[in-house]
Amino acid sequence: MSVSPNRQRLRDIENTGFGPNSSVEGGRLINSDGSTNLKKRGIPIWERTSVYHTLIRMKPRHFFFFVLLWYTSINLIFALIYFLTGVEHLVGGDQAQTYFDKFMEAFFFSSQTLTTVGYGRVAPSGMLTNSIASIESLVGILIFAVMTGLIYGRFSRPRAYLLFSPNILVSPYKDGKALMLRVATYKNNHLTDVDAQLTLAMHVNEDGKIVTRFYPLKLEIQKVNSLALSWTIVHAINEESPLYNYTQEDVVNTKMEVIVIIKAFDDHFSNTVQQRTSYTYQQLIYGARFLPMFNRAADGEYTLLELDKINALEMVSFPENAHHHNGAKA
Amino acid sequence: MSVSPNRQRLRDIENTGFGPNSSVEGGRLINSDGSTNLKKRGIPIWERTSVYHTLIRMKPRHFFFFVLLWYTSINLIFALIYFLTGVEHLVGGDQAQTYFDKFMEAFFFSSQTLTTVGYGRVAPSGMLTNSIASIESLVGILIFAVMTGLIYGRFSRPRAYLLFSPNILVSPYKDGKALMLRVATYKNNHLTDVDAQLTLAMHVNEDGKIVTRFYPLKLEIQKVNSLALSWTIVHAINEESPLYNYTQEDVVNTKMEVIVIIKAFDDHFSNTVQQRTSYTYQQLIYGARFLPMFNRAADGEYTLLELDKINALEMVSFPENAHHHNGAKA
Amino acid sequence: MSVSPNRQRLRDIENTGFGPNSSVEGGRLINSDGSTNLKKRGIPIWERTSVYHTLIRMKPRHFFFFVLLWYTSINLIFALIYFLTGVEHLVGGDQAQTYFDKFMEAFFFSSQTLTTVGYGRVAPSGMLTNSIASIESLVGILIFAVMTGLIYGRFSRPRAYLLFSPNILVSPYKDGKALMLRVATYKNNHLTDVDAQLTLAMHVNEDGKIVTRFYPLKLEIQKVNSLALSWTIVHAINEESPLYNYTQEDVVNTKMEVIVIIKAFDDHFSNTVQQRTSYTYQQLIYGARFLPMFNRAADGEYTLLELDKINALEMVSFPENAHHHNGAKA
Amino acid sequence: MSVSPNRQRLRDIENTGFGPNSSVEGGRLINSDGSTNLKKRGIPIWERTSVYHTLIRMKPRHFFFFVLLWYTSINLIFALIYFLTGVEHLVGGDQAQTYFDKFMEAFFFSSQTLTTVGYGRVAPSGMLTNSIASIESLVGILIFAVMTGLIYGRFSRPRAYLLFSPNILVSPYKDGKALMLRVATYKNNHLTDVDAQLTLAMHVNEDGKIVTRFYPLKLEIQKVNSLALSWTIVHAINEESPLYNYTQEDVVNTKMEVIVIIKAFDDHFSNTVQQRTSYTYQQLIYGARFLPMFNRAADGEYTLLELDKINALEMVSFPENAHHHNGAKA
Repeated sequence: MSVSPNRQRLRDIENTGFGPNSSVEGGRLINSDGSTNLKKRGIPIWERTSVYHTLIRMKPRHFFFFVLLWYTSINLIFALIYFLTGVEHLVGGDQAQTYFDKFMEAFFFSSQTLTTVGYGRVAPSGMLTNSIASIESLVGILIFAVMTGLIYGRFSRPRAYLLFSPNILVSPYKDGKALMLRVATYKNNHLTDVDAQLTLAMHVNEDGKIVTRFYPLKLEIQKVNSLALSWTIVHAINEESPLYNYTQEDVVNTKMEVIVIIKAFDDHFSNTVQQRTSYTYQQLIYGARFLPMFNRAADGEYTLLELDKINALEMVSFPENAHHHNGAKA
Repeated sequence: MSVSPNRQRLRDIENTGFGPNSSVEGGRLINSDGSTNLKKRGIPIWERTSVYHTLIRMKPRHFFFFVLLWYTSINLIFALIYFLTGVEHLVGGDQAQTYFDKFMEAFFFSSQTLTTVGYGRVAPSGMLTNSIASIESLVGILIFAVMTGLIYGRFSRPRAYLLFSPNILVSPYKDGKALMLRVATYKNNHLTDVDAQLTLAMHVNEDGKIVTRFYPLKLEIQKVNSLALSWTIVHAINEESPLYNYTQEDVVNTKMEVIVIIKAFDDHFSNTVQQRTSYTYQQLIYGARFLPMFNRAADGEYTLLELDKINALEMVSFPENAHHHNGAKA
Repeated sequence: MSVSPNRQRLRDIENTGFGPNSSVEGGRLINSDGSTNLKKRGIPIWERTSVYHTLIRMKPRHFFFFVLLWYTSINLIFALIYFLTGVEHLVGGDQAQTYFDKFMEAFFFSSQTLTTVGYGRVAPSGMLTNSIASIESLVGILIFAVMTGLIYGRFSRPRAYLLFSPNILVSPYKDGKALMLRVATYKNNHLTDVDAQLTLAMHVNEDGKIVTRFYPLKLEIQKVNSLALSWTIVHAINEESPLYNYTQEDVVNTKMEVIVIIKAFDDHFSNTVQQRTSYTYQQLIYGARFLPMFNRAADGEYTLLELDKINALEMVSFPENAHHHNGAKA
Repeated sequence: MSVSPNRQRLRDIENTGFGPNSSVEGGRLINSDGSTNLKKRGIPIWERTSVYHTLIRMKPRHFFFFVLLWYTSINLIFALIYFLTGVEHLVGGDQAQTYFDKFMEAFFFSSQTLTTVGYGRVAPSGMLTNSIASIESLVGILIFAVMTGLIYGRFSRPRAYLLFSPNILVSPYKDGKALMLRVATYKNNHLTDVDAQLTLAMHVNEDGKIVTRFYPLKLEIQKVNSLALSWTIVHAINEESPLYNYTQEDVVNTKMEVIVIIKAFDDHFSNTVQQRTSYTYQQLIYGARFLPMFNRAADGEYTLLELDKINALEMVSFPENAHHHNGAKA
C-alpha cells in the first residue's frame, strides 16, 4: 500500500477535516442524501432528540399523519373531559340519548372550540364547562401556532435544490489527473456566492492499526459568483493532493469517501442554503470525463440546461507520461 | 479581432466566473431584472419547479388571483361533499328547496367553516357532516397558515431596492479609461457593507470555435461601508483588465455582457439583500461620463438625491495619448 | 488650514468610505439615531417608499393608530356594502328601524366577520350577502396575516440595544493621541463577534472648491469576541490617520463628522444586529478621557456595569512632546 | 508569581478579548450555561430589559404560566368592562341573576371573543357593547399574534445543542502540553463551518494592583467543516501562549477562566447557531487526557457516539523534558 509515505507529507493538514479524528471504521460516514450514518447513545432519547429537527426533517406524508393524530388526540382528551363533567352543560348538544351520541357531541364541540370555528349550535353553559372551553380555545390557538408555524416553516425552508452527478470521476486535467464531480440547480432557483468544500476520508494503516483520516481537498475553483448552469468541481491530483500517486487499487483499499458540502446564498429565500452529499469508492469512475449538459436553444434566444445529462460521461485513457510529468515536478 | 492575445494573458483567471464555462451562445445570460435567460429540461416540470419560489416571485395581481382561485376551489370541493352527503344535516340550511339553493347553502357553510368564522346560523349535525366540518376547519387552518405565511413573506421579503443606471459607460479615468455604472437606493432603506461583483461574459474565438468565456472584473472599490447616496462602480481598463486594448468595435464583436451582483445588509430587514442586473453591449456608451445626481438642499440642512438623474451623463472624448500611456505601462 | 498636504498622502484611501464621493455639503450626514439626513426626489413618492420599512420603523403609538385606522376603515367599507345591498339579508340584525341602527348592525356584523369571531346572532342569508361575507372573512384573514406579522416582526426585530457615549474624545494614547468613543449594551442581551467601522467625513478645500471627503478610520481593535461590559473604541491619531497633525481648530474648520457602524451577532435573535450613530465636531471634546464605568459588586460575586457613567470623563492635558514625538516618526 | 514577564511579551495582544479591559474582579465572568455573571444599573429597569429577550430566554414552565396569567388578566379586564356597561346587553347571558353569575357570563363571553371562537349563545347587542366586543376581538388577534409568534419562536429558535466536557484538561501534546476541552452535538442536528473561539481571563498583578486581563487563545484547529462526532479543541501551550511556563499553582493564583464561544451553521434551522460556556480554574485538571468517545458499531455499518463519555479521561504524567524542550525553543 503506497499510503504511508504520502501521509507523512500531509501530517500538517491531517486533523483539519470532518469534526474530530475518527479512529475507527463504521461504514460510510455521510449518506448520499447528506444525513450522517451515525447513532448516538449515552443520554436518554428525549434529551438527544430535537423535536424541531425531527418535525422539519420528516417526510410530508408522515408529517400530515402526525398533525392528524395530534388533532384527533387533543379532541379526544377534551371530549372525554366534557363527557365526564356532563354533556348536559353543552346547550344544544344535550338531546343526545346514548353514551356514544353524547361523547360524539362532546367530541365535535371540542373540535369546534379547538379550531375556534365555534358555530354555537352547541355551546357551553355553567362555570366548569365554560372554563374548560375557555382553556381549550387557548390551547387550540397556541398549539395551532406551532403547527401552522411548522407547516409554513417546512414549506419555506431554505434548500439548495442541487442535483449532484451520481458518480465522481478521475479525469485527465491539464498534464495530469483531477477528481471531478458535477452539480446543477434543478429548480427555478438562482444561487450566488456558491462555495464548495470537499473532504476526503481514508482508512489508512497507522502503526499497524487501521484508522480513518480526513483531508481537505483543495479545489481549482472553490467559489463561484453565481450558479445558473452546471458547475464541474475539480480537485487537481498534483503533489499537494492527498491522492497524489494513488492508483485505482489504492483508492479501493483505503475505502475512500469524498464528503461534499455546498453552501450558497439564495435570493428568494434571502438565506444561506446548504446541501451535502458523499461519494464512496464504489461511485468513483477512474478514467472518464463529463460531457457538456447545456447548449444553445434552437432559436438562439436562451440557454438550455439538460438535467438528465448530469452524469453524461465518456471513458478516456490517461496519457502514459501524465504520471511521470507530475512526478518530475514533485 | 484583437481578442486572442489578451485572452492568453488571462488564462489564469478564466473559469472563475459565472458558474461553469459556457461553450455555447444563447442570447443574453441575465435579463435586466436579474432573472436568468435559461430553460431547464430533462426532469418532469413538477420536480424542477419550486412552488415556494414560484409563489414568492409571482406578480402581486397573479398571486391574489391564485389565492382567490384556491379559496373558491376548496370551498367548491367541500360544498360538493356536504351536498352529496345530504344538506339536511346542515341545521338552519335545510329549508333550501332547489338543488342550486342547497348547493349554495353548502358552499357558504363551507366558507364559514374554512375561515373559522362559523356564524352558526347553519351548523352541522350528525356524525358524518360533523366529521367533515371538523376536518374542513383543520384544513382551513393549515392551508391558511401557508397562505398567510406567503403573504407576509412576500410583504416582508428582503429586497435591495436598487436603481441601476440604464447604461454602462466607458469613461475617462485617471490617465486611461474605466467601465462605469451607477447605482442608488430608491426607497427609504439604508444599506451597509455593500459589495459589488462584476463578471464579464464574452464570446471569443478559440481554435476557430466561438465560445463564451467569463472573467471577473476587478473594481477600484469593491465594498463600501454604507450606501446612502449613489455609488459609481468603477472598473479601470488597465493592463490587468480583460478589456485592455479593446476598441469600441471589439466590444460589439464579442457580444460583451456585464453581469452585476450587489449584496448588502439592510438593518430593517436585518438580513442580507441582493440584486442582480446585466448590461449587454447595446447598453454600453463609449466616451461618456455620469453627472452628479445629488446636491445640497436649498436650506443647506440636508442632502438631496435626485433619482431621475441616475443616467444623467455627458459625452466626452478620450485624450489621444491615453491609449499610448497605458500601452507604455504594459 | 493644514488640510491639503495631509489629503495628498491619503489619496489612496479616499473614495473608500460612505457610499460615493459627496461633492457638496448638506448639514450632517447621519443623525444621532442612525437615520440618514437625506431626501430623495425624482420618482413618485409611492415608488420611493417601502411600506414595509415605514411600518417597521414607525413609532409604536403611530403604528397602533395605523392598525386601528385600518380596522375601522375596512369595517366601514364592508358595512357600507352590506347597508347598500340590504340589511334585511342580515338575519338577526333586520329588526333595526332607523338608517343609523341598520348601518351599525352592518358595521358590527362586518367586524365580527373580519375577525372571524362570527357570533351568529347576526348572520348572512341569501346569495349576495353570503358572498360578500365570504369574501370579507378571506380579506380579514389575509390582511390580519400582514398585521400580526408586522406586530410580531416589530416585537422581535433584531436590534443591537447599544448605548453610545454622547461625546467623542481626543484622549492621550500611548505616546500620542487617539479618538475615543464608548459603547455598551444597555439591555439583557449578549453580543458576540462585535465589529466596529468608523468613517470620517470632512469638508476639505480642493482646487478652491469645498468638497466632502470620506476616510475610513483604522481602529486599534476593530473586532471583539464578546461585548458584555463596555468597549472603548480607539482610533490612534498617528501618521497613518487622516487626522494626523490636526489641531482643535482644523477639526472645527473641516466640519468633521464621524460615522459609526457597529455590527454584531445576538444569539437570542440568532441574527446579525446593527446600530449606527454619528458624531459631529460639536460633540468632540479635545483633551479628555473616559473613566471606568464598571466595578466589582459589593459581595464580589458579579460585575456591576453602571450605564449612567457611559459619558463619565475627566479633562486631561497632552504632554508637550507628544506631538513632536509623533512628528519625528513620520 | 511568574505572571509579569509573560504579560510583557503579550502586550500586543492584550485588550483583544472579552469586550473591554476589566480592571476589577467580580467572580466568574460567564456562567456554565453561557449567561453573563453581570448586573447593570444606572437606567430604569424597563429601559434595560428587553421584553423579547426575557420571554425567549424564560424557562418553559414560567413562560406558560406567563401566557395563562396574561390570558386571564385580559379576560378579567374586559369582563369588568362588560359587567360595568351592563350584562343586559349580552343577549343570551342576561338571565344571570347574581352579580357573580353576571360577571362570569361576562368573563366567558370575553374569552370567546378574545379567542374569536364566538359561539354566539351569548352575543353582544347595542352600540357600546358591540364596540367593546369589536375592539376586544381586534386586541385578541393582535396579542395572540405576539404570543403565538413567541411560542413558535421559542420552539424553532436556532440552538447549537452542544455538550461540553465538564472539565478542561492540560494534556501532553506533541513535545509539550496543551489545554484541551471536548465538545459534541447531543441531538439529531448536524453542524457545519464550526468555529471555536477561546478567550483566557486572568487576574494579574499590574503595578501592584490586581486587574483582569483577557487574551485570545490560539487553537491548533479553529474551524472544522463539519461536526458530526466529537471535537477536541486544542490550545498548544507553547511560547506564543499566554499560559507558557505556567505551573499548576499559577493557574490557581491567577483565577484563570476560559471563555468558549462556538459558532456554526445548522442546515435545518438554516441559521447560524451559537453556544457559550466558561471553565474556571476549579474545573481544570492538570495532567489528564480524553479517551475516545465513539467507535464502530457491532455490525460495522455505522459509527456510534457515546455521549456519556464526553468527560471520559485518564490521568497522565508529563515527560520531564517536555518543559525544557519548549523552553529551549523560546
